[in-house]
Amino acid sequence: MSKKIVIIGGVAGGASTAARLRRLDETSEIIMFERGSYISYANCGLPYHIGNVIKERDSLLVTTPEAMSKKYNVDVRIDSEVISIDKENKKVQIKKVKTGETYEESYDTLVISTGSSPLKPPIEGINSPGIFTLWTVPDTDEIKKFISERQPKNAVVIGGGFIGLEVAENLHAAGLEVTVAEAMDQVMAPVDYEMAQLVQNNMVANKVNLILGDGVSKFKSENGKVTITLASGRTLEADMVILSIGVRPNGQLAKDAGLEMNQRGAIVVDKYLKTSDSNIYALGDVIEVEEYINKGRAMIALAGPANKQGRICANNIYGANEEYKGTQGTSVAKVFDVTVASTGTNEKTLIKMGMTEGKDYLTAIISQKSHAGYYPEASEMILKLVFSADGKKIFGAQIVGEDGVDKRIDTIATTIRLGGSIYDLKELELAYAPPYSSAKDPVNMLGFVAENIIQNKVKLSKWNDINPEVKNDVTILDIREEAELMVLEIPNSVNIPLGQLRKRLNELNKDDKIIVFCAVGVRSYNAARTLMENGFKNVTVYPAGTNFYKQVY
Amino acid sequence: MSKKIVIIGGVAGGASTAARLRRLDETSEIIMFERGSYISYANCGLPYHIGNVIKERDSLLVTTPEAMSKKYNVDVRIDSEVISIDKENKKVQIKKVKTGETYEESYDTLVISTGSSPLKPPIEGINSPGIFTLWTVPDTDEIKKFISERQPKNAVVIGGGFIGLEVAENLHAAGLEVTVAEAMDQVMAPVDYEMAQLVQNNMVANKVNLILGDGVSKFKSENGKVTITLASGRTLEADMVILSIGVRPNGQLAKDAGLEMNQRGAIVVDKYLKTSDSNIYALGDVIEVEEYINKGRAMIALAGPANKQGRICANNIYGANEEYKGTQGTSVAKVFDVTVASTGTNEKTLIKMGMTEGKDYLTAIISQKSHAGYYPEASEMILKLVFSADGKKIFGAQIVGEDGVDKRIDTIATTIRLGGSIYDLKELELAYAPPYSSAKDPVNMLGFVAENIIQNKVKLSKWNDINPEVKNDVTILDIREEAELMVLEIPNSVNIPLGQLRKRLNELNKDDKIIVFCAVGVRSYNAARTLMENGFKNVTVYPAGTNFYKQVY
Ligand SMILES: Cc1cc2nc3c(=O)[nH]c(=O)nc-3n(C[C@H](O)[C@H](O)[C@H](O)COP(=O)(O)OP(=O)(O)OC[C@H]3O[C@@H](n4cnc5c(N)ncnc54)[C@H](O)[C@@H]3O)c2cc1C
Ligand SMILES: Cc1cc2nc3c(=O)[nH]c(=O)nc-3n(C[C@H](O)[C@H](O)[C@H](O)COP(=O)(O)OP(=O)(O)OC[C@H]3O[C@@H](n4cnc5c(N)ncnc54)[C@H](O)[C@@H]3O)c2cc1C
Ligand SMILES: CC(C)(COP(=O)(O)OP(=O)(O)OC[C@H]1O[C@@H](n2cnc3c(N)ncnc32)[C@H](O)[C@@H]1OP(=O)(O)O)[C@@H](O)C(=O)NCCC(=O)NCCS
Ligand SMILES: CC(C)(COP(=O)(O)OP(=O)(O)OC[C@H]1O[C@@H](n2cnc3c(N)ncnc32)[C@H](O)[C@@H]1OP(=O)(O)O)[C@@H](O)C(=O)NCCC(=O)NCCS
Repeated sequence: MSKKIVIIGGVAGGASTAARLRRLDETSEIIMFERGSYISYANCGLPYHIGNVIKERDSLLVTTPEAMSKKYNVDVRIDSEVISIDKENKKVQIKKVKTGETYEESYDTLVISTGSSPLKPPIEGINSPGIFTLWTVPDTDEIKKFISERQPKNAVVIGGGFIGLEVAENLHAAGLEVTVAEAMDQVMAPVDYEMAQLVQNNMVANKVNLILGDGVSKFKSENGKVTITLASGRTLEADMVILSIGVRPNGQLAKDAGLEMNQRGAIVVDKYLKTSDSNIYALGDVIEVEEYINKGRAMIALAGPANKQGRICANNIYGANEEYKGTQGTSVAKVFDVTVASTGTNEKTLIKMGMTEGKDYLTAIISQKSHAGYYPEASEMILKLVFSADGKKIFGAQIVGEDGVDKRIDTIATTIRLGGSIYDLKELELAYAPPYSSAKDPVNMLGFVAENIIQNKVKLSKWNDINPEVKNDVTILDIREEAELMVLEIPNSVNIPLGQLRKRLNELNKDDKIIVFCAVGVRSYNAARTLMENGFKNVTVYPAGTNFYKQVY
Repeated sequence: MSKKIVIIGGVAGGASTAARLRRLDETSEIIMFERGSYISYANCGLPYHIGNVIKERDSLLVTTPEAMSKKYNVDVRIDSEVISIDKENKKVQIKKVKTGETYEESYDTLVISTGSSPLKPPIEGINSPGIFTLWTVPDTDEIKKFISERQPKNAVVIGGGFIGLEVAENLHAAGLEVTVAEAMDQVMAPVDYEMAQLVQNNMVANKVNLILGDGVSKFKSENGKVTITLASGRTLEADMVILSIGVRPNGQLAKDAGLEMNQRGAIVVDKYLKTSDSNIYALGDVIEVEEYINKGRAMIALAGPANKQGRICANNIYGANEEYKGTQGTSVAKVFDVTVASTGTNEKTLIKMGMTEGKDYLTAIISQKSHAGYYPEASEMILKLVFSADGKKIFGAQIVGEDGVDKRIDTIATTIRLGGSIYDLKELELAYAPPYSSAKDPVNMLGFVAENIIQNKVKLSKWNDINPEVKNDVTILDIREEAELMVLEIPNSVNIPLGQLRKRLNELNKDDKIIVFCAVGVRSYNAARTLMENGFKNVTVYPAGTNFYKQVY
């Protein structure tokens, strides 16, 4: 069953496809074209090399062309850009990047894994010196060289997505003063506004200057300084700028070849990763995928999906008919001291889709410890779950905390993948010993709380349901102990410690709107149950208590 | 709907039931009897207080009787042992432990969560001074007092289960020389023999004396020393002994009351946790549960199930008809530098059930890194998956490693809980960034390897398929680079580095039985593919390569 297979792109998707193809068949001829000089490198590690967290440049090069060709008998051609595809005659045209020379190569099957590139919108001055993007090994080399030669004191990172924030952390680690400027009103678009506050607070605590809601309108480079003018008119000056405002698929080649594309320039594939041409497969950042939760179409640039698609693509080239079932967008990033992770759809997306809380979806925000509180070094995390009003569908989850965040997002991502409900979250039997979790894991707790919400056993207020500045028609009932109030007092609140509540119910009015507060949300939930069972009609619990309140106010 | 509910046992199951009961109804009368002086304490934290890892004794007392009564309005009666149940008249008889006084209390609904107690078989001298068990707060106090007053130099822990090993680690942390003596030929019964080696090696590396396959036949205490005679006749001398050889359910009370029991003394309940008497529920260590994987009956003493059953039990007392769907036995323990975790059924249990590898089940053992290898501090873990021959059912998994073990067992436990197959493991979309995982998570890899095994793309040898001592009829093909052989050489092996394999195939015989070796199992898998595709008929890969080999030989 020997075939001639040509692969365009030699990193995550391309190299994974090549490796699996070879394992499936020794006899096929596999040619892999890469326009850069490096294949199979760790894109995701690049930011950490800038901060010297990953010290050895070589460790970023997972495989070299020589090793790849020896190990997998793949004809690896670096510095070779595929400049056109002739799908009728099953040929590609290649340009040798270093000499400009071109030549043709035929194929039986073509695989396109050309990835994506950083967005560079036509902003005035965007190509000025001192402005970088970080996407490839040479990009990294250039940034590192600039830092070591020019000794910049400060940097502005444009864009607060996960790559922007990783870069910010690593420039900070390299000793620069860092500003992050983001056009939206929050960093980390995959999480909702209130969850992003936790990340932002930690950045600020680490001395990052954070500018939100203010995009770039122009750049100017002069005397080794870049002046950035923001939409508001505000100007910033920096020794260097890293642009990280999003990606666009490298789809032009496919488009020119007449393959079916979506409106944003990504290749359309069927569930077998086949393009509109039956001899051409495509995968990775350059394709449009099915978004797993709502079954819409999406472009999601992540390494996990690209690598897994590589295996499926290779299998299908050898006749497997294996489906790629869509991308959930499970992701995680380390941002200074916190880990932020999410899977599935967030609340703001549901709202954009026209959905209404209470009717179409519900949310739960809780605070939980990374492991048993009595075992050393337990830290708090805040978890948000977005689910359907009947609890049968989990739309998504977001978690921010210092430890154990990746584990909890993975168990929820697994539950979502297998079609599990919030009732399944309750029942998950997760591993418990004091150093690792609690007898009821935070994910179980999300299930319990979600169920309580559905069954009207508790109602959580929205994080911004109170205005601490003014005394309004809400009774804020703080049921913490007096000693706890010294650390943080909620303005205009009434304090009745939980242990006294049953005896002091007469101090409260059954018809008032009451928001109950504690440190975590657990005691206030117990207080709310007591109030509700005693005929109080309008009781809500402030989600995740002062742990959350102090972060969002 | 006010009821009088009596709960026997005030710790994990009992206290959880009480708390949820109160949240469901303010008006019920709830009385909780506890024969000890402490309720709601962290059993699981006790070993760590001995090692001073958990410094404050108070932090083990999650709730005090006073707090419990104030917070939940529960009538908590400590030092009160329930000595009989009169189910016809719905009454219990209580003995005040301190005074011997007895009295009766009636109930509408009774909840039994009397837990289990450490096994103390009738071995000669088992009640001698210097011999302890660790189960309760007073047990802990006694052990700590003994250590501080007598300054013992060495200790023998009898039993290598997870509590025994936690105790061993903590006695070691407290400065004692520790011996663990176990009657079986391995520690940590929930994992298979070969996986237990990894734990044992780490214990030995931490200077624990390990005696396997040799149970206790008698104790003798003299002049402040305990002499332990083992079945083999070997004797050990120790300043103190901790017995940790298993548990038995505290079921006598229920048995005497005429409730249906299993042969081993555990209470039989239906799926709603109701006993054979319709006014009596039971939960926790004292009941028999359905084992989730094979649907047999089992007794599984774990806090996660007990706590979750408490919530279900309370719901059902208020008419919820909520099912407890069985226990998987997901568990984890920290043993010195390693984490050992498992979920579901292990291979030896399947063999005991009469199942045969290849026909009824398959296994995969792989080595994977805790996170991307190029990011600092990645460590190796060994994962074992046991699954049905068609891949549709996952029987169980076992993992040993230094980091990220709990996360992976949880994603597999979740997959099992939701009825997922090995094909689902392949597709799980888990969170990836270099500090947390790899683009293909170890759990995805288990899925890939399991699929390859099913599809005959690879055959893993058993860990003990080779005998390094003698040259036998197997060709051991080591495909590592020459430099790697210096660290560890496999006796009687042939070395052909992977990159040269295709050119040197003629040095090997196509009909020989070949076991391929590398460090991890990935390169040897690639080598095996090349061999198989070139007509070699009997090629297996040594699972998890030298990473595993060096641990089991
Ligand atoms: C700095 C950074 C950090 C990241 N961190 C993470 C992370 O933590 N987690 C995560 O999941 N994802 C992360 N990603 C995203 C992840 O790396 C990508 O999703 C993944 O690499 C996509 O794989 P791909 O094969 O589609 O594209 P790529 O891996 O980018 O490979 C595409 C290759 O095709 C080549 N190419 C393009 N056009 C041609 C042509 N015409 N001819 C020849 N060659 C061509 C390109 O030069 C490129 O090398 C990160 C990306 C970057 C840049
Ligand atoms: C040292 C140790 C470490 C552990 N570590 C872990 C771990 O890491 N992970 C894990 O999942 N599990 C662990 N466990 C197991 C876990 O603690 C138990 O599974 C769990 O506590 C069982 O809950 P239960 O309510 O059934 O019993 P318990 O929590 O033991 O409560 C039973 C209570 O009932 C009382 N009682 C019994 N009979 C009577 C009577 N007649 N009248 C009045 N009171 C009575 C007892 O005094 C006892 O306090 C550990 C246990 C121990 C002892
Ligand atoms: C280096 C590269 C070419 C390797 O591709 P690969 O061989 O498919 O991937 P791995 O080396 O991880 O090995 C996975 C294979 O080994 C198998 N495997 C893994 N562990 C194994 C073990 N212990 N025993 C046996 N087989 C094992 C898997 O089943 C899989 O094989 P399959 O796909 O045929 O089922 C590719 O991963 C790559 O280019 N990576 C860098 C680029 C990148 O991904 N960047 C983005 C992230 S930073
Ligand atoms: C202390 C103890 C009585 C508390 O029981 P509990 O109130 O059921 O448990 P928790 O304090 O963990 O709280 C869980 C409840 O709070 C809710 N909750 C948790 N986090 C919440 C949040 N942030 N906001 C609102 N509600 C929250 C849960 O939904 C759950 O309520 P529900 O069961 O009514 O749905 C019991 O856990 C106990 O005795 N523990 C120690 C003994 C033990 O377990 N030992 C073995 C392990 S070491």
